[in-house]
Amino acid sequence: MEKAERIVIALGGNALQSKNSGPTAEAQLNVVKKTCGNLAELSARGYELAMVHGNGPQVGRILLASETARDVVPAMPFDVCGAMSQGYIGYHIQQALRYALAKRNLHIPVVSLVTQVVVEPGDPAFQNPSKPIGPFYSREEAETLQREKGYVMKEDAGRGYRRVVPSPLPRRIVEIDEVRNLWDDTIVVTCGGGGVPVIETDRGELEGVAAVIDKDFAAELLAEQVDADVLMILTEVEQVAIYWGRPEQRNLAHMSLEEAARYTEEGHFAAGSMLPKVQAAMKFVRNNPGKKAVITSLDRAVEALEGKAGTVVTFA
Amino acid sequence: MEKAERIVIALGGNALQSKNSGPTAEAQLNVVKKTCGNLAELSARGYELAMVHGNGPQVGRILLASETARDVVPAMPFDVCGAMSQGYIGYHIQQALRYALAKRNLHIPVVSLVTQVVVEPGDPAFQNPSKPIGPFYSREEAETLQREKGYVMKEDAGRGYRRVVPSPLPRRIVEIDEVRNLWDDTIVVTCGGGGVPVIETDRGELEGVAAVIDKDFAAELLAEQVDADVLMILTEVEQVAIYWGRPEQRNLAHMSLEEAARYTEEGHFAAGSMLPKVQAAMKFVRNNPGKKAVITSLDRAVEALEGKAGTVVTFA
Repeated sequence: MEKAERIVIALGGNALQSKNSGPTAEAQLNVVKKTCGNLAELSARGYELAMVHGNGPQVGRILLASETARDVVPAMPFDVCGAMSQGYIGYHIQQALRYALAKRNLHIPVVSLVTQVVVEPGDPAFQNPSKPIGPFYSREEAETLQREKGYVMKEDAGRGYRRVVPSPLPRRIVEIDEVRNLWDDTIVVTCGGGGVPVIETDRGELEGVAAVIDKDFAAELLAEQVDADVLMILTEVEQVAIYWGRPEQRNLAHMSLEEAARYTEEGHFAAGSMLPKVQAAMKFVRNNPGKKAVITSLDRAVEALEGKAGTVVTFA
Repeated sequence: MEKAERIVIALGGNALQSKNSGPTAEAQLNVVKKTCGNLAELSARGYELAMVHGNGPQVGRILLASETARDVVPAMPFDVCGAMSQGYIGYHIQQALRYALAKRNLHIPVVSLVTQVVVEPGDPAFQNPSKPIGPFYSREEAETLQREKGYVMKEDAGRGYRRVVPSPLPRRIVEIDEVRNLWDDTIVVTCGGGGVPVIETDRGELEGVAAVIDKDFAAELLAEQVDADVLMILTEVEQVAIYWGRPEQRNLAHMSLEEAARYTEEGHFAAGSMLPKVQAAMKFVRNNPGKKAVITSLDRAVEALEGKAGTVVTFA
């Protein structure tokens, strides 16, 4: 038998939460169940999967609860909030996916690993923290936090002040050996939220830092390190488009690396939205010229792998 | 070479937090670093380890923060709080233990698995919820929660009302295959806080329940299922004692199953404290008559495995 194709999947926020269902854990579980139906279908087609999920809204709420309750319970550092979100989301995915697989008579174990991802203290992102996290504060509160905790606080147009943290690039997945060990007979959920960001000190100790790693970049790194055949980035839209939202919008079934670079330069892709997905896809095919990256929506994932939907990114 | 002894370790609350250091995540990390020095020493002696940690104070604080902030962020269900505590504590242990091993030139991967543990809906514990969790409420609040959410609320001598949940026995570790897959070359942290309690519905779906599984019983089940040679329960005291805290206190270097049963019947072991540890040890040697359970403190663990400290429990 031909070796099964290995696919690393980056799950966007809509795979965990729908706009109509509200921000509760119960609502998340319902959305995750639907998501896992789609993922199980990929598995039923014989693909070998690993999953990286986002955690933006979830870690935001964990931090918000922690900061709101800080007079009653000590507030949690942001790296710990990230680890907690991995437990939270990983639990839902492994519970729902195992069942979705079993319904298809597939008895494939699913497990979530708490995952640390090393970032470089010299990453330029640390000079320019830009990701807002947690609650809004008044100017006075913001100044106190800046002074007492060293937080970088930025004003958010009229709504108050928020803490901002850097978004450095992922350099190394600490638990990569365990992902590789498990891969052959297990579906692994790893690098949740892009991974808990850690820096490595001079003496080799890892230390959590307050930062946010883009989950699409973490998925790209994972795909390279497990020698995946496909990096699949699932999002809300079925295809990448240029001239998005304008009359001349054109959806793309395929992009070469060169085309992707040109469209990026022309500003077709929104920062923090489609841009990191396209960048992650480009990096994967640049470093693995024979392979492909796919950007599509959850419900077109199967067709996209058969070349019938989505946007395929290849080297040439 | 003789096959390495396999040891499942249950880590008590004092392995994660010291009485003097306060309830912050930063303080926990410092205690965990010391704990991991001891654990790395066991690994350096050639023992193969897996770890089960408690989560009582941690999940209590997560729930308390979540309930305190409930007007701002939807409160988390208790099973999700448990999964979050696995992420939180697992992250600290895997970060600290990896470094403690590396300092000893041992490059052994350490990873925490989000772990679900199946309990039986028919477990008598569900008829008698007794574990208090979360914040104190007034009588009116308690009545509202009882009516609107179906919580069982009990008055806690003069301090108000608290929610109580059942403490059923662990029946099956959902992710046991992954623990076995990883065992040979990885130190696995699993069943944190006794595992996230789930029941299995008639159609085979797992559903989280609000319950607390005793981590010593979960460790016992794990030890049986990975065919461990030793179940080691680490706690605050070096040895089990009878007539504890009285002039005639006698520390025990050894207990047979029969002696342990007699001391238990005579009421020597405190419920919720030494009793579940002794019960877990008894169950392990009853089901595995050639093997042993050890109850001791973290800093005597190495000596205890050499038979020079702690309390060893054997079948005869």
